[in-house]
Amino acid sequence: MPPDSTETKRRLADAARAEFSEFGLAGARVDRIAERANANKRSIYMHFGTKEELFDLTVAASLVELADAVPFDVRDIPAYAGRLYRTLQSSPDIFRLTSWALLERPRPLDTEMASYREKVDAIREAQHDGILATEHDPATLVAMIIALVTSWDHASWSLRAVAGTDAPENRQADVEVAVRKLVTVTPGA
Amino acid sequence: MPPDSTETKRRLADAARAEFSEFGLAGARVDRIAERANANKRSIYMHFGTKEELFDLTVAASLVELADAVPFDVRDIPAYAGRLYRTLQSSPDIFRLTSWALLERPRPLDTEMASYREKVDAIREAQHDGILATEHDPATLVAMIIALVTSWDHASWSLRAVAGTDAPENRQADVEVAVRKLVTVTPGA
Repeated sequence: MPPDSTETKRRLADAARAEFSEFGLAGARVDRIAERANANKRSIYMHFGTKEELFDLTVAASLVELADAVPFDVRDIPAYAGRLYRTLQSSPDIFRLTSWALLERPRPLDTEMASYREKVDAIREAQHDGILATEHDPATLVAMIIALVTSWDHASWSLRAVAGTDAPENRQADVEVAVRKLVTVTPGA
Repeated sequence: MPPDSTETKRRLADAARAEFSEFGLAGARVDRIAERANANKRSIYMHFGTKEELFDLTVAASLVELADAVPFDVRDIPAYAGRLYRTLQSSPDIFRLTSWALLERPRPLDTEMASYREKVDAIREAQHDGILATEHDPATLVAMIIALVTSWDHASWSLRAVAGTDAPENRQADVEVAVRKLVTVTPGA
């Protein structure tokens, strides 16, 4: 590979992330990605394959980055949820990328599945050990924890407008409190 | 108006809903909507205005339909959440429309704001009366209730794949249990 190949690839990856985050899969334009990266269109196909493959790689990379930044901790899920919230707030493009993927790319990604399997297994064991609430199956608990972490990201623009200036800027404490209620073993249950 | 004008308008509204739900705002094509409705493109502009206006009307209409189908009940929010879950499952296009709107149309809708304001006010009063948990401000409680109702709709395809056949088909009971934990007043809190 020429010496600048890695550098071109990195610039293309950054450009793809910005483009897909803004416009989604269908709305993204490969020539705009090339332009943003100051590269040519052919180098995208050479390094990443099709637009769909580039999209999948972009989403997977952002999720690997997220998982690395916020390791799962089954012994303190509320604190994990708070950290996940904080990290997602600082990288809003991850939420947009995964939202587009949900609408436009209905298929699982290997790396993401591995990361979920780890969480599901750890939760199942913790439920078995009696240290996590058992009302929900492990995968549902994961889905609900993420739903609470992203509840304001998913909130419609109308609800945001109604909340207005009453809304606290940092909702990390809200997330931690709600997740604690969800996962704490109810006495006598 | 000619006798078939109302009928044409209804067909166009149905076609718009199918098209926007599938492709979103940017991805939708006005000529495909006209084709689906067996009408001409000009009749869309005549009845609904621009593509953006038609999108806003489509989203607003689906939310009015949802609000009419599932009246809010501040005295039994878990049961409300269960009914909302069931109704959203039977009309998956509503979830898709609101997801596209969140990504592509960052502005509040009047009818939706009115509907949220009603819920927020009712929750504020119920919190004041001591019958609802007060850890979260009313708008955050609304956001979190909806997040729990839609937690599996928002779940990535990877998490769905991991859940696999273990996943219960009907998650209404999960939603009701989780929402009950969220809104119930904690003794001594």
